[in-house]
Amino acid sequence: MLTLDMVKDAAQVLREATRQTGLVYAPNLSGKCKVFLKPECMQVTGSFKVRGAYYKISLLSGEEKSRGVIACSAGNHAQGVALAAQRNGIKALICLPEGAPISKVQATRSYGAEICMVPGVYDDAYARAIQLRDEKGYTFIHPFDDEAVMAGQGTLALEMLQENPDLDAIVVPIGGGGLISGIAFAAKQLKPSIKVFGVQATGAPSMFNAIREGHPQRLERVSTIADGIAVKEAGANTFPIVSQYVDQIVTVNDDEIATAILTLIEKQKIIAEGAGAVPMAAIMFDKLPLGGKNVCCLVSGGNIDVNILSRVIQRGLLMTGRNMQFTVELQDKPGQLELVSHIIASHGGNVIMCSHERSNAGTDVVGCYLRVEVETRDEEHIWTIRKALTDAGLKLI
Amino acid sequence: MLTLDMVKDAAQVLREATRQTGLVYAPNLSGKCKVFLKPECMQVTGSFKVRGAYYKISLLSGEEKSRGVIACSAGNHAQGVALAAQRNGIKALICLPEGAPISKVQATRSYGAEICMVPGVYDDAYARAIQLRDEKGYTFIHPFDDEAVMAGQGTLALEMLQENPDLDAIVVPIGGGGLISGIAFAAKQLKPSIKVFGVQATGAPSMFNAIREGHPQRLERVSTIADGIAVKEAGANTFPIVSQYVDQIVTVNDDEIATAILTLIEKQKIIAEGAGAVPMAAIMFDKLPLGGKNVCCLVSGGNIDVNILSRVIQRGLLMTGRNMQFTVELQDKPGQLELVSHIIASHGGNVIMCSHERSNAGTDVVGCYLRVEVETRDEEHIWTIRKALTDAGLKLI
Repeated sequence: MLTLDMVKDAAQVLREATRQTGLVYAPNLSGKCKVFLKPECMQVTGSFKVRGAYYKISLLSGEEKSRGVIACSAGNHAQGVALAAQRNGIKALICLPEGAPISKVQATRSYGAEICMVPGVYDDAYARAIQLRDEKGYTFIHPFDDEAVMAGQGTLALEMLQENPDLDAIVVPIGGGGLISGIAFAAKQLKPSIKVFGVQATGAPSMFNAIREGHPQRLERVSTIADGIAVKEAGANTFPIVSQYVDQIVTVNDDEIATAILTLIEKQKIIAEGAGAVPMAAIMFDKLPLGGKNVCCLVSGGNIDVNILSRVIQRGLLMTGRNMQFTVELQDKPGQLELVSHIIASHGGNVIMCSHERSNAGTDVVGCYLRVEVETRDEEHIWTIRKALTDAGLKLI
Repeated sequence: MLTLDMVKDAAQVLREATRQTGLVYAPNLSGKCKVFLKPECMQVTGSFKVRGAYYKISLLSGEEKSRGVIACSAGNHAQGVALAAQRNGIKALICLPEGAPISKVQATRSYGAEICMVPGVYDDAYARAIQLRDEKGYTFIHPFDDEAVMAGQGTLALEMLQENPDLDAIVVPIGGGGLISGIAFAAKQLKPSIKVFGVQATGAPSMFNAIREGHPQRLERVSTIADGIAVKEAGANTFPIVSQYVDQIVTVNDDEIATAILTLIEKQKIIAEGAGAVPMAAIMFDKLPLGGKNVCCLVSGGNIDVNILSRVIQRGLLMTGRNMQFTVELQDKPGQLELVSHIIASHGGNVIMCSHERSNAGTDVVGCYLRVEVETRDEEHIWTIRKALTDAGLKLI
């Protein structure tokens, strides 16, 4: 059973392996509530996962350690287990589905883990890991549904309340529920009045649904940019703890997550991955009763693929009015492109893409389309440009 | 005259206004040398500039304070002066050239400064600021060529050596020279054996040239993504200090800067602006004699425009082989697009843009061009795909 002593013991053990990531007051992000960021994206391996993995491994017997550990993950848990095993001087084998991003495979390998690429998807890699555990006697390190892992993640609550005993609420991402179980349990032991809120992605609401239905159930499919919390089914062991200790769970969609990532970049100069940004998204989009409170916003990790980051920034720019994309129908005669570019330029828009298509099936024989992408300042700027184009008799579609 | 006592006094004064940004050992960025990052991008206002501005303002007489201060800047210095004035309860007027990015104007205004938009370019805004100083009796806060400002920036050296007395070298960006003057002077007073290296952008080598020629001279034009150090002429007061205390100055180009920004994002989860990333670029691209040394790499600021960040990431992806763009000449007959897409897909490339153009003036009458952009894993992956396309008889141009 999870106890506060376990969490305190984990904190002792973790001193030798993890970084104190601090608690940063963020006036730029504070509005209705005071926001204090816990930047676990600065943790070794780039996420909190190393806490649970390291503590779990530290509790293994000498004999278990000598046989090594196994895990199944394409993400932060893999890196956490790999580093924890390396620091403990034991062997780690990580099963990955074949399509896993090469950057994550490389990062995991860089911590000295052995990689086993399994044809198929996550479930196939998981089945193979269990098979190898049974055959070779490795200890399987579960990413969330294990009390030692929860205790490791719970050390975050100790650090948060140590750095600011006046916190009224903590906002935490939920995938399988290990992180929030540890934090909610420990925080409420230390300060019963504190609120703990969970955030899931709209496209992967496994715990959200489980709480509503009264029991975990398996989602057919999950789809979100927050890959770190794209978990199909809440844990059997985490579910009762979340039921008991978490005050409310809300969901945020991919556009809200992209905006939160962009905001953390602009206002705080830190990189959050999708899963790491869902608490910020819930705070920004006012999903929780936080008015006037001292709120700890956990940024749980920063391991975002840069190609995805680039798309997220593009999306965030669109969402916040710094980029406009439109198509305008033109007469097929000289001077039309000049007219459009003149209007955009005279209103201070900066064209970054322009594509001119004649004879589209949808236009008149004498018509053509112009697709334009413009850097803008804000929504108002966009509407000024749109209005100027429309006032000049152009048809925006 | 700049003295160590001034720098120590500045450190005392700054305690009430600035953040301790720490010194972070970065094993992921260490190779030939051990890299310790000083993340001033986490400083209030997002850059070190508040240090010099705050200390300068703290030294003003009561009468000077009552008249207020004026500065000319579209960037970090404006925000530093604005915040420093606000904290001291005095008036700040910031002159900006009309084309200044709206995000920086808004940030400056958010710290309570009054904004004076001046038609024209930086030089016009500067002339107007001097005129207003003379007419209204404001104190002009120079961005670099002032000893109090240098002393404020020099507090960084105290923090660096306090956190790690074993540092062998410090790598610092150079614009006008105020930051490196303060740091080099203070660091060498405290530890004469320490090396201090400066880095400029290839497109704005004002101090680099000044040292080579023996005196500052004005550059006709400057062009770099590192706008924070795009300074046309080294300071008359900073030049002699740099000559005496800085061991070597090197330059880095925009591609190297973009790669450094991307690396800081991926490995360290922090956002550097162009000027803030030039030390990292100099270390990564091996421009300095740092082998085996404990090196402090200053990340001086993180105020990068997000539209520019997006372009920098794109550029960095290209530079590191995670994105390939090519044009292939096709026969104008059915099945050609399928052939190309089949080859790319079968080698694990992910097409993100594709544009098919018929009847370009440069092709045969029966030929056409296909422009393709693909997400890739690394340079090797790119060459595998290029080779497969060529082996299939396609002509890449």
